Amino acid sequence: MSVRFRKLALIGIGLIGSSIALAARRQELAETIAISTRKPETLEEARDLHLGDIYTLDAAEAVRGADLVILCTPVGAYESIVKAIAPALEPGAILSDVGSVKAHVVGVVSPHVPPGVHFIAGHPIAGTEHSGPSAGFPELFTGRWCVLTPEPEVDPDQTERLAAFWRAMGSIVEVMDATHHDMVLAITSHIPHLIAYNIVGTVADLEADTKSEVIKFSASGFRDFTRIAASDPVMWRDVFLTNRDAVLEMLGRFNEDLSVLQRAVRTGDGAALEAMFTRTRAIRRSIISAGQETAAPDFGRPHEAPLAIPAADRGGEG
Amino acid sequence: MSVRFRKLALIGIGLIGSSIALAARRQELAETIAISTRKPETLEEARDLHLGDIYTLDAAEAVRGADLVILCTPVGAYESIVKAIAPALEPGAILSDVGSVKAHVVGVVSPHVPPGVHFIAGHPIAGTEHSGPSAGFPELFTGRWCVLTPEPEVDPDQTERLAAFWRAMGSIVEVMDATHHDMVLAITSHIPHLIAYNIVGTVADLEADTKSEVIKFSASGFRDFTRIAASDPVMWRDVFLTNRDAVLEMLGRFNEDLSVLQRAVRTGDGAALEAMFTRTRAIRRSIISAGQETAAPDFGRPHEAPLAIPAADRGGEG
Repeated sequence: MSVRFRKLALIGIGLIGSSIALAARRQELAETIAISTRKPETLEEARDLHLGDIYTLDAAEAVRGADLVILCTPVGAYESIVKAIAPALEPGAILSDVGSVKAHVVGVVSPHVPPGVHFIAGHPIAGTEHSGPSAGFPELFTGRWCVLTPEPEVDPDQTERLAAFWRAMGSIVEVMDATHHDMVLAITSHIPHLIAYNIVGTVADLEADTKSEVIKFSASGFRDFTRIAASDPVMWRDVFLTNRDAVLEMLGRFNEDLSVLQRAVRTGDGAALEAMFTRTRAIRRSIISAGQETAAPDFGRPHEAPLAIPAADRGGEG
Repeated sequence: MSVRFRKLALIGIGLIGSSIALAARRQELAETIAISTRKPETLEEARDLHLGDIYTLDAAEAVRGADLVILCTPVGAYESIVKAIAPALEPGAILSDVGSVKAHVVGVVSPHVPPGVHFIAGHPIAGTEHSGPSAGFPELFTGRWCVLTPEPEVDPDQTERLAAFWRAMGSIVEVMDATHHDMVLAITSHIPHLIAYNIVGTVADLEADTKSEVIKFSASGFRDFTRIAASDPVMWRDVFLTNRDAVLEMLGRFNEDLSVLQRAVRTGDGAALEAMFTRTRAIRRSIISAGQETAAPDFGRPHEAPLAIPAADRGGEG
């Protein structure tokens, strides 16, 4: 089965979209790459970066004649985009996406997909805390999971065609149920981000002099939370609006556990604290042996000179 | 004022103790370095690593004749150590420590300090998630804060002597009140660790098949929490047992804020979520411009082959 597509249309060209464009070009996975964005300045940035062959503000124009269309915008924009492109989608084309939630996406996109178009929702679990067309790089997906959540009626050959595309970009592909995906991602990604946002917010509320010392002494643990909490606000807003049930379920478990831990601190129960802190090590070890992390001591990362950071242009993986 | 000490005694030789030994040796800050540990095998490891000049299981013997004594064990062991070494401490010597909490340390150590010995509690805010004598490296303190919390009666010249020692090892020294230190560290370090331990524990409770997928998909945010939660359990148990009030105060604030965020998720309040997620960026930017972090996209860290990790030998900075 050929991995090569005739025309790849990317709707949205942030960190993920631009990385797909670069990886697909490098692996020769598409003859033509069409890029569409809502904002003219983002489109110009993509053009200056030579990310594709066709640049248009009209998403329907971008998808016309495309045999692979991937939505790479925040999830909240999907419904209106799909309504706009539906008449232009070619029979036989694959329509996919890269959003961090899947059941909601299937719910809003499916009703608008024309007969003959294969809709297969997807989620590459990869990213950095930066965003925008210039943040992309072709190695982003190397060794990273890409989850596909086709509905039962989807032709398995089409799912395999899309899986081959992702594998050619370096991903390891897993097919699963959309609801199950959302539950797993709620605890591995959405709750950690919510917690990170929350603790950084708590700090922002502390009075002025304490706040400056918090920043001064951030290397002691807080720093890692701020990196997560620097992710793209709109993308994350949409994640929490669209994966509410799984997030609230997992947050409920988290809060129950935190109450137990809080009580152990309050009552000075050292044995309970030590037991809790010991068992969490096993999880860390499993992650390292699963190849999703290295054992290198990252807390002691080299202390480089402060760097300028790009304006407000940061995203996150989801 | 000379930074050089006649005899440096390190009681405890984990990540911090061994890093002090290596940095002090490299900067020629002590003529003789004496190392004492509770466990014979740790002492042998230190000897094999050539970390000092004198190795003894008897802490009192190590401090005899020393003009600088630094406690580098978990905080819970301080009281019995100080009782044991008090008769052997030389008048004029500086007694210090590297513990992550300070008011408690001042409370348990001060009553046993003999007249003429200058007790100045300290906390180098540096570390990695590894521990043990082999985890140390001489650059650990470079560019990192070291907080000293002398009581009001301490001679400022002695505080300056100790500060010069830390500066010679690369630290930036800050003198502050012990209680204030504990409050700042509660939010920058202790709460982030508690939360990380908690979320990793929540995951450990999820049923078997989900758990394996959580590990598989950990690159999506959870991974960063597991790194923090791999820190040394005994050290962290002692932190929470000895900084209870500040931790509970900050945990209360955290919980209040989390309730607000949870309600925004439950009611689907997108505007509130976006506002919360946006303001946390400013904090991140301040940390980068304060030189305590770089802007490099670390989420996308290179995907190396799985590495073997050392037994259960991991620590954490506090």
